[in-house]
Amino acid sequence: MRKIYVIGIGAGHPDHLTLQAAKAIGRTDVFFVLDKGEAKESMIELRRRMMKAYGRPSRRIAEGRDPDRDRTPTDYQGTVADWRHRRSEVTEALISEHLLDDETGGFLVWGDPSLYDSTTAILEEILARGQTLFEYEVIPAVSSVSTLAAKHRIPLNRVGRPFQVTTGRRLADEGWPAGVDDVIVMLDAQQAFTAHPDAHIYWGAYLGTEDELLASGPVSEVADEILRIRAEAREKHGWIMDTYLLRR
Amino acid sequence: MRKIYVIGIGAGHPDHLTLQAAKAIGRTDVFFVLDKGEAKESMIELRRRMMKAYGRPSRRIAEGRDPDRDRTPTDYQGTVADWRHRRSEVTEALISEHLLDDETGGFLVWGDPSLYDSTTAILEEILARGQTLFEYEVIPAVSSVSTLAAKHRIPLNRVGRPFQVTTGRRLADEGWPAGVDDVIVMLDAQQAFTAHPDAHIYWGAYLGTEDELLASGPVSEVADEILRIRAEAREKHGWIMDTYLLRR
Ligand SMILES: C[S@@+](CC[C@H](N)C(=O)[O-])C[C@H]1O[C@@H](n2cnc3c(N)ncnc32)[C@H](O)[C@@H]1O
Ligand SMILES: C[S@@+](CC[C@H](N)C(=O)[O-])C[C@H]1O[C@@H](n2cnc3c(N)ncnc32)[C@H](O)[C@@H]1O
Repeated sequence: MRKIYVIGIGAGHPDHLTLQAAKAIGRTDVFFVLDKGEAKESMIELRRRMMKAYGRPSRRIAEGRDPDRDRTPTDYQGTVADWRHRRSEVTEALISEHLLDDETGGFLVWGDPSLYDSTTAILEEILARGQTLFEYEVIPAVSSVSTLAAKHRIPLNRVGRPFQVTTGRRLADEGWPAGVDDVIVMLDAQQAFTAHPDAHIYWGAYLGTEDELLASGPVSEVADEILRIRAEAREKHGWIMDTYLLRR
Repeated sequence: MRKIYVIGIGAGHPDHLTLQAAKAIGRTDVFFVLDKGEAKESMIELRRRMMKAYGRPSRRIAEGRDPDRDRTPTDYQGTVADWRHRRSEVTEALISEHLLDDETGGFLVWGDPSLYDSTTAILEEILARGQTLFEYEVIPAVSSVSTLAAKHRIPLNRVGRPFQVTTGRRLADEGWPAGVDDVIVMLDAQQAFTAHPDAHIYWGAYLGTEDELLASGPVSEVADEILRIRAEAREKHGWIMDTYLLRR
């Protein structure tokens, strides 16, 4: 039986890799790489470094072309579903072509595979089609959210209280979520925090990497500064990934 | 300057330790241990094993008596605040007695320090008193929630959608939270999921350990079985820690 590892690698710091992930990298014959569209040079570099440090000398890399994706769709969920479907077809072709009997394949997933990542859904879609068979295992990791909290030295929750994890799009469209005073925001292309001047923000970009940026304070006081350093960093690097906790 | 590491160690699997955490363990002169009340034999054992595998031969252990705590308080937040305060006093005494100038101390925190853990709040309380000075750093880790998701091979969120993390007490007292269809429940002493027969549950106990238990399905179909295996496991081990995702 062919086996596939979905390996969480942490969100930027090479030493956020777990021992389990390092061992799984060492057992992988073929790494599947399919995120040209999304992956930036330093993200590619981190994966390369981990494969080099912990991988077998005989490891192979199977690269597929990531399907194009509308980044500003009107029907977000429909667009993502369609993109996933096309992605699952490309992935299936890669697996059936490159993963031989009894071999082990691996996907190196940014951060923790449980957070806003489609790898498991894509593998499930392939398995559901019933043409390409394999077993697979998911290896959890340190997420960008845990890294954000660690760098600010704060818990995500307050004592006995809930928190919500959401996207920038949701926060912008629907306002502050009901029932929580602590909101973690990912995938925010529109700086939705600016609409909440009364909250306290704990913000981080390129967390765990050498380019890490941190800022915190009342939104009313620090929003402008965050917008400024965010814009500068984005200009400098050509891309940005940031996440933040809003607390009120 | 004295330095303290707050080291997340993962929620049960020895190989969920990160390379960064292993290195921090190796730099620690004194480990502070203060969770007699809470820690069960196998949790103590995991820490011992990690100290042995990655610690310095010369490491010391400073043990403090965990203050008693009312486990079924009427005023939950007040009781926790009071307990934290007493805990911070015990911790401060330990640090000032055992951590010498230029030495490095360490707390081994279960799971990820950002989730329902009081270590950083206690250190902040000590620093705020201004008597005992040190710098400290938090090392993020794989949480029990990430492990739950990995074992069930599911993402916590659905595409572009938010999720909430809450406690069993909250879910029992306040019902299904507003605005989300995906709820992760921790610290549940009352099996609050039974009130939500229409949801799908992904449940896990002793995640990452050799005693791991998993179950999933519609609550209406699997609740009785979970209650039964949970009660049996609790009886057998003398304690249990479990967490789950409810999805509707
Ligand atoms: C597609 S999601 C993947 C999240 C990932 N699975 C994780 O566990 O962090 C990408 C989003 O994660 C956040 N993110 C990932 N890595 C980050 C980093 N190093 N610094 C800040 N935010 C990051 C950003 O909000 C980004 O928009
Ligand atoms: C005080 S909180 C600490 C959580 C921890 N910081 C983490 O990141 O997992 C304890 C709760 O975490 C969950 N938990 C911790 N370890 C677990 C494990 N190995 N299996 C299942 N649940 C666990 C349970 O819900 C438990 O009541």
